[in-house]
Amino acid sequence: MELTVYLAGQIHDDWRNQLKEKAAKKDLPIHFVGPQVNHELSDDIGENILGQQPDKVYRDDAASSINNFRTQVLLHKSDAVIALFGESYKQWNTAMDASAAVQLHKPLILVRPKTLVHPLKELSNQADVTVESIDQAVEVLEYLYT
Amino acid sequence: MELTVYLAGQIHDDWRNQLKEKAAKKDLPIHFVGPQVNHELSDDIGENILGQQPDKVYRDDAASSINNFRTQVLLHKSDAVIALFGESYKQWNTAMDASAAVQLHKPLILVRPKTLVHPLKELSNQADVTVESIDQAVEVLEYLYT
Amino acid sequence: MELTVYLAGQIHDDWRNQLKEKAAKKDLPIHFVGPQVNHELSDDIGENILGQQPDKVYRDDAASSINNFRTQVLLHKSDAVIALFGESYKQWNTAMDASAAVQLHKPLILVRPKTLVHPLKELSNQADVTVESIDQAVEVLEYLYT
Amino acid sequence: MELTVYLAGQIHDDWRNQLKEKAAKKDLPIHFVGPQVNHELSDDIGENILGQQPDKVYRDDAASSINNFRTQVLLHKSDAVIALFGESYKQWNTAMDASAAVQLHKPLILVRPKTLVHPLKELSNQADVTVESIDQAVEVLEYLYT
Amino acid sequence: MELTVYLAGQIHDDWRNQLKEKAAKKDLPIHFVGPQVNHELSDDIGENILGQQPDKVYRDDAASSINNFRTQVLLHKSDAVIALFGESYKQWNTAMDASAAVQLHKPLILVRPKTLVHPLKELSNQADVTVESIDQAVEVLEYLYT
Amino acid sequence: MELTVYLAGQIHDDWRNQLKEKAAKKDLPIHFVGPQVNHELSDDIGENILGQQPDKVYRDDAASSINNFRTQVLLHKSDAVIALFGESYKQWNTAMDASAAVQLHKPLILVRPKTLVHPLKELSNQADVTVESIDQAVEVLEYLYT
Amino acid sequence: MELTVYLAGQIHDDWRNQLKEKAAKKDLPIHFVGPQVNHELSDDIGENILGQQPDKVYRDDAASSINNFRTQVLLHKSDAVIALFGESYKQWNTAMDASAAVQLHKPLILVRPKTLVHPLKELSNQADVTVESIDQAVEVLEYLYT
Amino acid sequence: MELTVYLAGQIHDDWRNQLKEKAAKKDLPIHFVGPQVNHELSDDIGENILGQQPDKVYRDDAASSINNFRTQVLLHKSDAVIALFGESYKQWNTAMDASAAVQLHKPLILVRPKTLVHPLKELSNQADVTVESIDQAVEVLEYLYT
Repeated sequence: MELTVYLAGQIHDDWRNQLKEKAAKKDLPIHFVGPQVNHELSDDIGENILGQQPDKVYRDDAASSINNFRTQVLLHKSDAVIALFGESYKQWNTAMDASAAVQLHKPLILVRPKTLVHPLKELSNQADVTVESIDQAVEVLEYLYT
Repeated sequence: MELTVYLAGQIHDDWRNQLKEKAAKKDLPIHFVGPQVNHELSDDIGENILGQQPDKVYRDDAASSINNFRTQVLLHKSDAVIALFGESYKQWNTAMDASAAVQLHKPLILVRPKTLVHPLKELSNQADVTVESIDQAVEVLEYLYT
Repeated sequence: MELTVYLAGQIHDDWRNQLKEKAAKKDLPIHFVGPQVNHELSDDIGENILGQQPDKVYRDDAASSINNFRTQVLLHKSDAVIALFGESYKQWNTAMDASAAVQLHKPLILVRPKTLVHPLKELSNQADVTVESIDQAVEVLEYLYT
Repeated sequence: MELTVYLAGQIHDDWRNQLKEKAAKKDLPIHFVGPQVNHELSDDIGENILGQQPDKVYRDDAASSINNFRTQVLLHKSDAVIALFGESYKQWNTAMDASAAVQLHKPLILVRPKTLVHPLKELSNQADVTVESIDQAVEVLEYLYT
Repeated sequence: MELTVYLAGQIHDDWRNQLKEKAAKKDLPIHFVGPQVNHELSDDIGENILGQQPDKVYRDDAASSINNFRTQVLLHKSDAVIALFGESYKQWNTAMDASAAVQLHKPLILVRPKTLVHPLKELSNQADVTVESIDQAVEVLEYLYT
Repeated sequence: MELTVYLAGQIHDDWRNQLKEKAAKKDLPIHFVGPQVNHELSDDIGENILGQQPDKVYRDDAASSINNFRTQVLLHKSDAVIALFGESYKQWNTAMDASAAVQLHKPLILVRPKTLVHPLKELSNQADVTVESIDQAVEVLEYLYT
Repeated sequence: MELTVYLAGQIHDDWRNQLKEKAAKKDLPIHFVGPQVNHELSDDIGENILGQQPDKVYRDDAASSINNFRTQVLLHKSDAVIALFGESYKQWNTAMDASAAVQLHKPLILVRPKTLVHPLKELSNQADVTVESIDQAVEVLEYLYT
Repeated sequence: MELTVYLAGQIHDDWRNQLKEKAAKKDLPIHFVGPQVNHELSDDIGENILGQQPDKVYRDDAASSINNFRTQVLLHKSDAVIALFGESYKQWNTAMDASAAVQLHKPLILVRPKTLVHPLKELSNQADVTVESIDQAVEVLEYLYT
């Protein structure tokens, strides 16, 4: 059974590639999708397509509309969501995508370090599974095929 | 027409009372609900009801389950949601509640300072209205009755 | 049985008052809601609340976000929708609200002059009832209580 | 990941072919669907299948029922919707399909010239992305695969 | 706890009044709604409001659109549905309303004589309760308050 | 684009085969499903699987549960529904399936002879398209690919 | 804010009265509903209304249809559900109602003794809150008003 | 037409393999999924992935979160559900999955011995079909293709 999993979370390091490689090593028939991981492109995409905007607020709004379009299309195609939180960045998009997954009945794996237990406690409680590492998230995916 | 509005956001200062007073001055027939604003109680409620937990992780999970129960009941009774972000705190619960409002078709007003435009751009783009102050949020509510 | 009916359509003449008066004469226990009918306010509300915008595009976007918030709240409180089309104005908001009513399972009465039969044929076909005058729309409402 | 996109909008020029060619040049694995673009057939289909109707009103109603059946089937198979507005024609079907897309959680790209900003402001505000040209719409689709 | 119950079924005798009287004798706090029971009015309502139609087919379509509007509004306000079948009449509206109730998660009581067991077996199997008399239907309602 | 269409209606003659052959002649890539057309089997299936029942009422209930299971599975897999009514039989199952299609947002083609216009007027008004012959129904399907 | 809470669970002792009294002592404005607690009546209700059935299987099926009708009506009117498990009885109805609450987005409090942790672990994990006593469940309800 | 069927029920004997073999002998194009059937693994999976937990309660909660994730993913991919009850074990998970199937509009076959008629009467009444053996369940599946 082939599945599609959306990888929500920051786009500042290559955690998605690590996760995909670990899943590939286990031969899991899973297709991963996610947000634009080229950070610069993610910020520029609004002006790239829509042209220069009056100031940074409008520039950000333009980019976000296209990023949200992308997320909506891919999230609706997904069978499950993994949302990863780390110690850096605001990560409000990650919380937004994780909460959308819960409301859309997309089963959710939350990945967060122990240091973030307290501020993420309500979101963690809504997730189906909460783990602390990418390896553990991949083990949960593997369990679908065991 | 009486309405119920859920006030999502941090519970460290009295912004909710300010907002309620401003709405009361305008005689808006709105009933406001929201999360537990007694921070200590919000953290303790798990152990208060369920007894001592093995460690902080479990203590937090116990509290969050009861806080989430409260939020779910009140959010489903609400006609609209106001989610306020400030410069302090992680505020992942605020993002979680705001995103849930979007998915549940509860019209959403986002309140955030200009300094947070960039990290909140995708969530702002999903909100129905984004404003920068409590006064503006109340003016949007007032517009429902104008 | 008290009902709430949303009145979608242009805001350039006082057709809503006419309709409300006709319903009042028949003692129908119906509460009518609808968009902001003060046209100037409807256009200004964005800058009134959010402050001056860079240009007309952004001014319009600001106003529309608050108008949409209003419509969403009131539409969800309604038991039925009346959408009126006339020979003037683009009236894309009217089409938008009428189509939203269909998708949200809110029973829909379409009011349109015979001259608009052709361009409104698909929307008319999706409406529950299509009539040509406000009087007829009120008679349909009266039938709910007959 | 193959996707299906519904192209809502007027059927008086060949904008759909232009859009499909631009998407084909970028090798996007997207299948496009849309309304009947043979205008004459779209108007005649009711009487073609159901026989002559009493007058133009009934002729239009007959055609619209079959056009709506077509739209409903294809819209439900789609992952996203592009709705294009131009300076000619009433285009209430376009507004109807765009609004249905929003309510059905089908991500929506609105294409409209700058001259239509004001009358389309509320619909634009509900769309996920608003652009001014077909090229830009295709660039948004391309971004799904970048 | 006050409830609203929709009474689907033929409109050729006064079974609804019988049922209402039996419920009133038991002091059940239930508000009953249903289709137009003035048969002539039910058939004429289209031409009454919309004017003379080209022939009987269009006359019936006009009436049915207004009858359906009525049913949709009242059915959505109801907490449960009673659908009564008898030995006379086609009663396809009754089957239509009963099936709509099932799909809308409105609990359904089916009332039918033993002679109709076979042709109603699939609909009976989808109903929550099937009884053979109005008295039994009222007893089921009474059980809600016991 | 391959589609699945559910064929609701009586199972006493071979109208389904006629329809399938007409669709095959037009090379429509449509997969047709429907209820059990072996009438005897449809009536016996309950006792065939569950064993002898106490009397005809229970025998019918047993059969209907299995027939409904079949219909539910196949209806949910379908992109559209064709419901055919004729002059014979009660056909309450046909009305039940047609109404379920409407509520489930499955586009519906109703086929009925002119003699049944009056008793089917409300159901016809809820269908997307109403035609009088199998040929016309197939032409509507063909229009999806034109 | 007045709320309605459904009390799912066995009907062999008076735990519901205990719970209601504890809630009354705290002046919680909550209206409690639940299944038929007269066990004999709950078993007899099918034959009481529908007459004698062929054997125990059919007697049970008759009763269950009326009990389910009651549960469906009351569960849909409720804002939250409390499901209590004890050491006696099969309690599959309790599990059924609790799972329905989860799927219907009705916030759920599970009450179960520590001895049942293992067999109820998956259901407990789906509940919003799990407690071990009626007192704790009432404290969770009280927290809604704190 | 290929279908996916979820097999809910105890994991202590090999009833699923028996069922799959019987379906294979009939060449039914059905893909079966279900919970983790390695009981030890099902109990250990929480600590296997998340590490040692403070005590048995937390150990069970950890396992259940991963088992629930698995069930949610697979249940949403399924076209129908078979839930089997036997005379041993609490089987509250089986009741939970069966009730979820009902609420999610997944057609449900209940398998239970005659000895369990009484305690399962309400769940049986909600199922589409109730049978007493695996053979009968497979015959119901076979009927989909007859």
